[in-house]
Amino acid sequence: MADPATVRRALAAQRIETPSWAFGNSGTRFKVFAQAGVPRNPQEKIADAATVHRFTGVAPTVALHIPWDKVDDYAELGAYATSLGVRIGAINTNVFQDDDYKLGSVTNPDAGVRRKATDHLLEAIDIMDRTGSRDLKLWFSDGLNYPGQDDLRNRQDRLAAALRETYDRLGAEQRILLEYKLFEPAFYATDIPDWGTSYAHCVELGEKATVCIDTGHHAPGTNIEFIVAFLLRQGKLGAFDFNSRFYADDDLMAGAADPFQLFRIMYEIVRAGALDPAYGINFMLDQCHNIEAKIPAIIRSVLNIQEATAKALLVDRDALGRAQNDGDVLEANSVLMDAYNTDVRPLLAQVRADAGLDPDPVRAYRRSGHQEKIVADRVGGQQAGWGA
Amino acid sequence: MADPATVRRALAAQRIETPSWAFGNSGTRFKVFAQAGVPRNPQEKIADAATVHRFTGVAPTVALHIPWDKVDDYAELGAYATSLGVRIGAINTNVFQDDDYKLGSVTNPDAGVRRKATDHLLEAIDIMDRTGSRDLKLWFSDGLNYPGQDDLRNRQDRLAAALRETYDRLGAEQRILLEYKLFEPAFYATDIPDWGTSYAHCVELGEKATVCIDTGHHAPGTNIEFIVAFLLRQGKLGAFDFNSRFYADDDLMAGAADPFQLFRIMYEIVRAGALDPAYGINFMLDQCHNIEAKIPAIIRSVLNIQEATAKALLVDRDALGRAQNDGDVLEANSVLMDAYNTDVRPLLAQVRADAGLDPDPVRAYRRSGHQEKIVADRVGGQQAGWGA
Amino acid sequence: MADPATVRRALAAQRIETPSWAFGNSGTRFKVFAQAGVPRNPQEKIADAATVHRFTGVAPTVALHIPWDKVDDYAELGAYATSLGVRIGAINTNVFQDDDYKLGSVTNPDAGVRRKATDHLLEAIDIMDRTGSRDLKLWFSDGLNYPGQDDLRNRQDRLAAALRETYDRLGAEQRILLEYKLFEPAFYATDIPDWGTSYAHCVELGEKATVCIDTGHHAPGTNIEFIVAFLLRQGKLGAFDFNSRFYADDDLMAGAADPFQLFRIMYEIVRAGALDPAYGINFMLDQCHNIEAKIPAIIRSVLNIQEATAKALLVDRDALGRAQNDGDVLEANSVLMDAYNTDVRPLLAQVRADAGLDPDPVRAYRRSGHQEKIVADRVGGQQAGWGA
Amino acid sequence: MADPATVRRALAAQRIETPSWAFGNSGTRFKVFAQAGVPRNPQEKIADAATVHRFTGVAPTVALHIPWDKVDDYAELGAYATSLGVRIGAINTNVFQDDDYKLGSVTNPDAGVRRKATDHLLEAIDIMDRTGSRDLKLWFSDGLNYPGQDDLRNRQDRLAAALRETYDRLGAEQRILLEYKLFEPAFYATDIPDWGTSYAHCVELGEKATVCIDTGHHAPGTNIEFIVAFLLRQGKLGAFDFNSRFYADDDLMAGAADPFQLFRIMYEIVRAGALDPAYGINFMLDQCHNIEAKIPAIIRSVLNIQEATAKALLVDRDALGRAQNDGDVLEANSVLMDAYNTDVRPLLAQVRADAGLDPDPVRAYRRSGHQEKIVADRVGGQQAGWGA
Repeated sequence: MADPATVRRALAAQRIETPSWAFGNSGTRFKVFAQAGVPRNPQEKIADAATVHRFTGVAPTVALHIPWDKVDDYAELGAYATSLGVRIGAINTNVFQDDDYKLGSVTNPDAGVRRKATDHLLEAIDIMDRTGSRDLKLWFSDGLNYPGQDDLRNRQDRLAAALRETYDRLGAEQRILLEYKLFEPAFYATDIPDWGTSYAHCVELGEKATVCIDTGHHAPGTNIEFIVAFLLRQGKLGAFDFNSRFYADDDLMAGAADPFQLFRIMYEIVRAGALDPAYGINFMLDQCHNIEAKIPAIIRSVLNIQEATAKALLVDRDALGRAQNDGDVLEANSVLMDAYNTDVRPLLAQVRADAGLDPDPVRAYRRSGHQEKIVADRVGGQQAGWGA
Repeated sequence: MADPATVRRALAAQRIETPSWAFGNSGTRFKVFAQAGVPRNPQEKIADAATVHRFTGVAPTVALHIPWDKVDDYAELGAYATSLGVRIGAINTNVFQDDDYKLGSVTNPDAGVRRKATDHLLEAIDIMDRTGSRDLKLWFSDGLNYPGQDDLRNRQDRLAAALRETYDRLGAEQRILLEYKLFEPAFYATDIPDWGTSYAHCVELGEKATVCIDTGHHAPGTNIEFIVAFLLRQGKLGAFDFNSRFYADDDLMAGAADPFQLFRIMYEIVRAGALDPAYGINFMLDQCHNIEAKIPAIIRSVLNIQEATAKALLVDRDALGRAQNDGDVLEANSVLMDAYNTDVRPLLAQVRADAGLDPDPVRAYRRSGHQEKIVADRVGGQQAGWGA
Repeated sequence: MADPATVRRALAAQRIETPSWAFGNSGTRFKVFAQAGVPRNPQEKIADAATVHRFTGVAPTVALHIPWDKVDDYAELGAYATSLGVRIGAINTNVFQDDDYKLGSVTNPDAGVRRKATDHLLEAIDIMDRTGSRDLKLWFSDGLNYPGQDDLRNRQDRLAAALRETYDRLGAEQRILLEYKLFEPAFYATDIPDWGTSYAHCVELGEKATVCIDTGHHAPGTNIEFIVAFLLRQGKLGAFDFNSRFYADDDLMAGAADPFQLFRIMYEIVRAGALDPAYGINFMLDQCHNIEAKIPAIIRSVLNIQEATAKALLVDRDALGRAQNDGDVLEANSVLMDAYNTDVRPLLAQVRADAGLDPDPVRAYRRSGHQEKIVADRVGGQQAGWGA
Repeated sequence: MADPATVRRALAAQRIETPSWAFGNSGTRFKVFAQAGVPRNPQEKIADAATVHRFTGVAPTVALHIPWDKVDDYAELGAYATSLGVRIGAINTNVFQDDDYKLGSVTNPDAGVRRKATDHLLEAIDIMDRTGSRDLKLWFSDGLNYPGQDDLRNRQDRLAAALRETYDRLGAEQRILLEYKLFEPAFYATDIPDWGTSYAHCVELGEKATVCIDTGHHAPGTNIEFIVAFLLRQGKLGAFDFNSRFYADDDLMAGAADPFQLFRIMYEIVRAGALDPAYGINFMLDQCHNIEAKIPAIIRSVLNIQEATAKALLVDRDALGRAQNDGDVLEANSVLMDAYNTDVRPLLAQVRADAGLDPDPVRAYRRSGHQEKIVADRVGGQQAGWGA
């Protein structure tokens, strides 16, 4: 059985990065429902991330999205974050919202558009230099809606060229997190549709390029923990974008749709010794809280990941290994399920109490009056959303 | 073998309804790419529909979407349509774009929201009285993003009540087309997720309620032509929303993703004698041309449906029936494939020529200079999109 | 909060039916791995079912499969079951394993094959008369592998005729459980592919025909608890075939693939008051233990269903209803998850202790030496499998 | 437009390899329907393959499956094949049908089982030495049915070791074709579930290891032609196992389920210049004709691939490239569809006539009386199937 003190230490040391954009408005193509109290600028988004960290204690960094979080002075923004107890994390690029990108960004048949898109990626590294960020997250919406629309292979060549140029601009401590996604917004073919494509490009680029797994970006039936285990074995797992889904890229709260799957993913992380922040994986959230309040939804997501992690840490790995080696299918499954079926909320409450936190962050946030305060304060101005 | 003259007659008599909103801008949650020349009001949408009809000869009606196509005087709008050679078809309702509908419309836990939503449905029938429309198309985005968010069964009771009130308001010649959809914008549960749910409600409502099949609204692997055949047998197939998809509700041009599937669907229509407009099925398009030009995309979609229909009409049903009854799997499949593998473009060119149309509507439209004209003319104002 | 005594009473009263065939060998098309100790005749299968009941206390009935469990004297077989503390439950028919059924059974284009298949269904009712069974479970593997192979609609007519004849033969207390399945063994079209088809036939047949939900028979992404809630509302849910799946009809142990889904299903049962055996739903298992030991796998499946049920019973429905009516998405989800996250094993251990059972049936079975005993005893003869 | 003579030459030069096992009986876990006239030994399977080649002219090689096609003297078997006008192609291994392999072959936790499985792979290379085969096809059914059953990463290490040992045994002109498959017979995790896993292992192994794409082995919604294009770019596409599917690994006739997809796949082949046999791709069939006659089903499959290829060759690549570079979505799609919509049967009839073949191989086979002859001749003995 896992040593309780070790489990508590691991849970106390766990780190989850929140995304600035999840605090702003989001929605579907049918409607974006605006919510009272959402941030109106990067500073307010960072303040919200700091609020999540204040209540959970494990979310000390916040990812930015350029240009949505563009500011004149990133040093000042970083200092502001520090003043609130958090730091700026990964820099996310955006090459999907300009009219130029209708037929692609770095894979566009038009060389001028490719140049513009690549320049944006390079600019993001400039920003990283100023924010001290380690991670450049690249997601390309590039793809095709119709067979024949463009040449699949030419687009790979263009993609490789842009990645190479971007990679070569990275500083010694910087790295690329290369995301993949099955579909949306492209509906026939996506230029990086699966982990294999991302992996192959990362191998060609070099050791500073690693794969980012968004848990909502797979075909139905995909065994995500297998990909986690495989990429860990290859030394190419750089980050997660956590969220959950029932159908497509639903971007629901992590752990909301299939908590057992999240547990299995975290088990592979624990099994590989990759939970420790020193290992280098960036555990990020990437979610859309279309109908629920943003800050408590993110707190809940952090808690869901913590609970899955706690269960993963509780797996009796000696007993599991014995049963596996004995070929005892039922016993091996049972050992894993014993951990999953454990109610870890008391354990996490203890970990939080040890850290001087309220044992129930969701209730504590509700009681704090913070939501009412931001609703009252954040009046006027332009609410943040995917366009800003 | 099918009689050539009969086939040509059937093709000449085929009717496809175009949707006003497909001429406006559309996109994904990531970006709506605006296109030059899109309509700025219901009149210009109707003009675009009339253009499609002028080149294809089989699209004489255009569906409206309320409130996007709201006008003060529907009689005047109808007269305008008539002046362009088309008529107003189905009236589509919209109970998903007001802030009130964040947690549902007719299934909302709040009685006031339900009242408002139902009133909108009744108002749509008022409009039908004025436009002379037969069909009220009901699509509800209602559903849940999270387990527990609301009670699945209570929502069915609320849905049934709203449907009943709406049904009872229908005139003698009017009817409900009840759409279903697997997911989006709701991500955990949708209140009418499949044909079975729509069918069960329609049976309870009565003979003026029928199911509308949107070809993009199914789970992966669903055999759509089976649903077509089954609903025809039950007398409950009222309409199609044609489009095509690779993954989700991609809303691509009909026939673009799986032309063989479209052929199989049209074969079931032909086999049931349901192609004839007198049968009463409304064959509508419901598409989003996010990156391609709108009018030619709709012309292409009409052509794709015509080609699938022509192939379906060419099936040698005597030979097919013999092979089926003999249990000759390969021969039966072969008879069907013979029709599918036929190049029906010459046949359709002939049908068009007989009707005084250009045999190649896409090229004819390109040559006509019409696209350049609307791009030049439609400057200023507010482009139509899903919000208007 | 749910009253503890009520919860314990409900759990003590819960009933799950085991399938005789799950105790025999099974596998995939690639290989059936034989296991030592599996039954060699209906009596030994019933003995295994009785063993499951002895350790769990909630599985007092066993479903038979005809002809695999055909005997000369069903009264004698029933008496044997009674002597072991169990009873014969549903009668399952088999119209898929004779060479005649290659192209279908009741939907076969050949009238002679249809007659033979229907006669088998009638014979099963004869057997029910003798076993005192209430439930006739009908699963038809009928379908097509290739487009055009047979006429989809004709097959529905043939299906309806066979169902009608079978229905009319039912005794006053007997009923039909009509199963549906997306695919396999048919790969292009299945004649009853979804709940809607089964439902429509059941409505036409009458009140003694109800739908059976096999939890592994759906398209990817199908919300099964919605179907449960909907059929309960329509009064047409007759039974479950529980099992779990990651991809297709995997027939794994119930609760093994998605325990959260099983909980959501059981919640809809509890919410509708349908857990009580008096309500009339037959909660059956239908599984294939291809690589794990049969009896303990079935015990584990029973336990998994009990745990999901216990969690469903623990949902604070007052608090849930309040949050739902308030439109408090996060709170409503949280109330549901509180119950799901509870470790119900101690509660179930207590329920078992109260019933004079070992609190841990899996361990108790392991300790009992029963597995070793049947392995030693059941030597020679023909092991049971899907062919017998 | 493609030059007609070039197209005809390419079609005349195309080569498709047939699988010996497809001529034997096959089925689902529910039932294997035996067919009259199926082969009873490797020689008769080769004779059937020769028959397919005699009627189609493009299928001069036949893949063997060991141990199903085990013989004492492979030189003699090869000579027999040559005498019938065909040659022995790829050697397929089988490490899934012995009882030892219940929990895996090369990934089994038991070292003895792994040794046995690896020895079988090495033995297959011995056979290749004698048959002169170039290709060793490796498919591993290895995987897990339940979470926790075994350690995902340990299994990769074991897999890598066995692959390495096998690779090192290859002769200078021999190579590995490494297959992947989403699921079945394993239902929770498969050790090589996707192309990325196969690709990563092949890269590590070296240039003699390449990926084999079975068109039925993907998750729903997977864009297979993207994988084709990507692997061609990486120089790692070694072979196809063609078949078609609606749901899972249905193993239907190639081109039967989605002929448009097959065309898109063949277009990527043509576009990369990879159709020419000299390029080195092995275009194999891997199908199960469960309900239809074997030989004509395989002839039909060959024809379907030829038709898809012919259409791919007819694509006006200059026009396509222009439209793509212009960003003309509709025109580019239209150029592709023009080729797809062409009836290529007359063209292929001409190619066959030029080669001295009957222009309609299916009808020619029917007329030949060959089926009746093998039904009459092949009486007694043990019919071939997946077990032999």
